[in-house]
Amino acid sequence: MKIGIIGAGLVGSLLAIYLKKRGYAVSVYERRPDMRRKGYEGGRSINLALSNRGIRALHEVGMEDDLRKNAIPMHGRMMHSVEGELTYQAYGKEGQYINSISRSGLNRVLVTEAERLGVSFFFDHRVERVDLEATTVTFAHPSANKSESFDYLIGADGAFSAVRGAMQLTDRFDFSQDYIEHGYKELTIPAGAAGRFPLEKNALHIWPRESYMLIALPNPDGSFTCTLFFPFEGNPSFESLQTEAEVDRFFKSVFPDAAALIPDLIDDYRSNPTSSLVTMKCYPWVRHHTLLIGDAAHAIVPFYGQGMNAGFEDCRVLNDLLDHHQDDWDRVLPAFQQLRKPDADAIAQLALDNFVEMRDLVGDADFLLRKKIEAKLHALYPDKWIPLYSMVTFHDTIRYSEALRIGRQQKKIMDEVMKMPPETLSSLSLDFEKIMQQLG
Amino acid sequence: MKIGIIGAGLVGSLLAIYLKKRGYAVSVYERRPDMRRKGYEGGRSINLALSNRGIRALHEVGMEDDLRKNAIPMHGRMMHSVEGELTYQAYGKEGQYINSISRSGLNRVLVTEAERLGVSFFFDHRVERVDLEATTVTFAHPSANKSESFDYLIGADGAFSAVRGAMQLTDRFDFSQDYIEHGYKELTIPAGAAGRFPLEKNALHIWPRESYMLIALPNPDGSFTCTLFFPFEGNPSFESLQTEAEVDRFFKSVFPDAAALIPDLIDDYRSNPTSSLVTMKCYPWVRHHTLLIGDAAHAIVPFYGQGMNAGFEDCRVLNDLLDHHQDDWDRVLPAFQQLRKPDADAIAQLALDNFVEMRDLVGDADFLLRKKIEAKLHALYPDKWIPLYSMVTFHDTIRYSEALRIGRQQKKIMDEVMKMPPETLSSLSLDFEKIMQQLG
Repeated sequence: MKIGIIGAGLVGSLLAIYLKKRGYAVSVYERRPDMRRKGYEGGRSINLALSNRGIRALHEVGMEDDLRKNAIPMHGRMMHSVEGELTYQAYGKEGQYINSISRSGLNRVLVTEAERLGVSFFFDHRVERVDLEATTVTFAHPSANKSESFDYLIGADGAFSAVRGAMQLTDRFDFSQDYIEHGYKELTIPAGAAGRFPLEKNALHIWPRESYMLIALPNPDGSFTCTLFFPFEGNPSFESLQTEAEVDRFFKSVFPDAAALIPDLIDDYRSNPTSSLVTMKCYPWVRHHTLLIGDAAHAIVPFYGQGMNAGFEDCRVLNDLLDHHQDDWDRVLPAFQQLRKPDADAIAQLALDNFVEMRDLVGDADFLLRKKIEAKLHALYPDKWIPLYSMVTFHDTIRYSEALRIGRQQKKIMDEVMKMPPETLSSLSLDFEKIMQQLG
Repeated sequence: MKIGIIGAGLVGSLLAIYLKKRGYAVSVYERRPDMRRKGYEGGRSINLALSNRGIRALHEVGMEDDLRKNAIPMHGRMMHSVEGELTYQAYGKEGQYINSISRSGLNRVLVTEAERLGVSFFFDHRVERVDLEATTVTFAHPSANKSESFDYLIGADGAFSAVRGAMQLTDRFDFSQDYIEHGYKELTIPAGAAGRFPLEKNALHIWPRESYMLIALPNPDGSFTCTLFFPFEGNPSFESLQTEAEVDRFFKSVFPDAAALIPDLIDDYRSNPTSSLVTMKCYPWVRHHTLLIGDAAHAIVPFYGQGMNAGFEDCRVLNDLLDHHQDDWDRVLPAFQQLRKPDADAIAQLALDNFVEMRDLVGDADFLLRKKIEAKLHALYPDKWIPLYSMVTFHDTIRYSEALRIGRQQKKIMDEVMKMPPETLSSLSLDFEKIMQQLG
C-alpha cells in the first residue's frame, strides 16, 4: 500500500519511520530543500523542549537514545528579576526534566533514519493541488510539475498546511486561526570562553515582566537561544521600540543581566524577523483517504513546549490505532480524529493559559507558594495529586484532555486553599488529607 | 474618488447607492450574471425577513416605500403542533412586525436604482486576484481578464468572499468558520385557488420539533416557502431519510398539516439542494484601502432573520461615519471595524441561540408563559424592559452588542422569576416593580 506524506518536518519524518516500519511504501514530499544540505536554516525556532510524550513516541521506533545524546536536560525554571535576582523552581520531582534540543538537528536525524529504512524523500516539491476524492496531489517542482496518487495521504505540512487548504474548500469544514497580540523575536547569548555556559546550563531561563517576557534555552555549544515574547502594539511593544537607542535602553532597563550577555543585541534585534503566534483548529481531520496530523491539524502557541510533543504523540497514537484495527485505515482514520481532537483542543487551551503563567505569575510570590503547596501534595499523594504541569509534561499516559479537566478541578481547590491565613500557608501547616479528598 | 465594490448582492448594491449619493465614482463587480435577466435563480434563500434595522438603512436612501409594497407583514409566530393545533405569539406590540420579502426581487430593485443613479455594474466578473497593497483586482471574465485599481475597495462578496480570501493570506488575520450540525432544504406550499393563502398570511409559521423544525414564510403570490432545518446525521436526519417512502412517511407523521399542503413534497425534497449553515468571523476587516462588509465580514446562521438586516445596517453605519469624519476614509475604515465588530459577534451569537428557541422552546408552555410575563413587563415599562427579540428586531437604535448584554441580564432575572409557584406565574400576580428594579 502506497502512503504519501506531505511535509518532511519533525512530524512528517517521524510518521514516515512509523509507517515504513509497518511495511508500507512511504513517500515524503517537502516544499523546502533538503535540510541536511549545508546552509539550510531550520524552521521557526532554533531549539525546542522535548518532553515525555515526544520521547515516548521516539522510543517506540528506537530513536530515543540517539536523541538523548544531543539534548540538554532542563530541570526547572530559573526566573530573573529586573534586579538580577534568581529564583529557581523545579519542574517536577527529582529525575523529571524537559530537554532542550535543536530543531534542525532532530529533523536531520529523523529524515536520515527514515531514508535508511527505505522511505523516499522528494524535496523542493510544493503542493499545487490536492484532489481529495482521488487522493492525488499535483506538485510544482523546479524542473517540472507532476501528479502522484496514493492509497492514503497524510498532511504533516504544518500550521499553513496546503493539504488543509484543500479541505477548507469542502463543505462543512470547521476552521479557525487566532493570533495572539504578542509576537516573538530570537536573540543569541553566545557561549563563554571554551564553550562555557554563561547562565545555569540545566534550566529554562525566564525574565517574566507581566505583559511580556524573555526566555532562554541552552544549546550544546554553550550558547543560549533567547526569545522575546512581546506585544506587537502598545507600550512597550515592537511598534514602540523604533530606534536602536530605544531598543538598547529598553533591554538595559528591563533585562539588564540578559542584555549584558547579548553582545549583538542591536544587530540581532534589527535583522531577526518578528514572527506572529497563532492557534489553528479545524475539524474534520479526515476527508476520504486524506488525514491531517501535527500542526496541520492543530497548531498551538509555544508556551507549554508541547507543539512538537503533541505532533509526535499523534504519530504514536495513530500507530497504536493501526495495531488495534489491524491496519484497516478506513476504521483507523475516523477513530484517530475522534480520539485525538479533544486532546488537541485541550493542549491548545493549556498553551494559551501557560503564557500568562510564564510571563506574569512565575514572578509572583503567592504563585510560587501555591506551586510549593502543590508539590507537597504531590509528594504526599504521588499518584493522586499530580500538578498540571507534570501531567502535561511528564505523564504521557494521561491524555491532554484529562490533564485539562483535572487541572481545572485542582485550581478550584487551590483557589480555596490560598484564602487561608498567610502564616498557615507559608508554614505548610495544612490539612493535606482534607485538601486531597476534595479532588474526589 | 474611485470606489470598487465586489459583489452585487443585497449589501453590495445598497452600499453602491449610499456611496453614489455621496458623489463617488462607484463600480460594482459581480461573479454571476445580471439577476434581472430572465431565468436567473436567486441566492441561497427565496425570501427573507426584513425588519427595522434593514428598513432604516433603506429609508435613509429613500428606498423604503418601494420595498414596503412588495413586503408581507408578519406580526408573530404561528406554531403548529404535531396534532395540528395552532398557537400564536405576537413578535412585539401592536404595529410591530417583520416583513417577508423576495430576495431576488429586492436585489433587482436595488441594482436598478443604483444603475439609475450612475453606478456601473460589471456582471460575470469573477475575482481572480486581489493586490491589497495596490488596491488592484484582477477579474476573470468570459471574454478576457482585466485588472482595475481603486482608491478604496469594498468586499461585499458574501460568506465565501474572495476579497477576504486575499486577506486570509496576510499575517495576523483572525478567521473562523463553524458549521452547525443542521442543514436546510427548501420546499414549496403553492397558493390556493385565485392566489388564496393556504395558511394565515401575516405570520411566520413554525413547526417546532425540538431537534429540528420546519418554517414557512408567505410570498405575494399566495404561496409559502418552507425551509426544513434538519440534522445532517443521526436519527432522524437528512442521512436517515433515504427512500421516497421514508420521506413521505416522516413528513406525514411529524408535519401532517404541512405535508398536506405540499403536493410536490417528494420532488422538492429530491431535487432541491441540502445546504449547510455556517458562522464566519474574521478580524481585522480592513487591510490598507480594502474593507469587508456584510456576510464577507460576518456571516451568520439565519435563525434571527438578521443576516441581511445586519448587512444593511453596516451600510448605514459606514455612511454615518463618512458623515462624521467628512469622508476621511483613512479614519472611517478603522473606526468602522472597531465600532461594528462587537455588534457582528453579538448577532452571530444571538442567531445561534435563537435556533434553540425556535425549534424547541416555542413549543414549550413554560417558555410561552415567560414570554407573556416579559410582554407584561414591557407594557408596564415600555422604555425600560424591552424584550430581547424586540431590541434586536424593532429597536434599531440599540446596538446588537447592547441587546445581547441586556438580554443576558433579563434572562438571569427571568430565570429567578420562573422559580415562583406556577399559580403566581400563570395569574401574573407578580411584583413587577421589584422585578424591574433588578435590571438596574
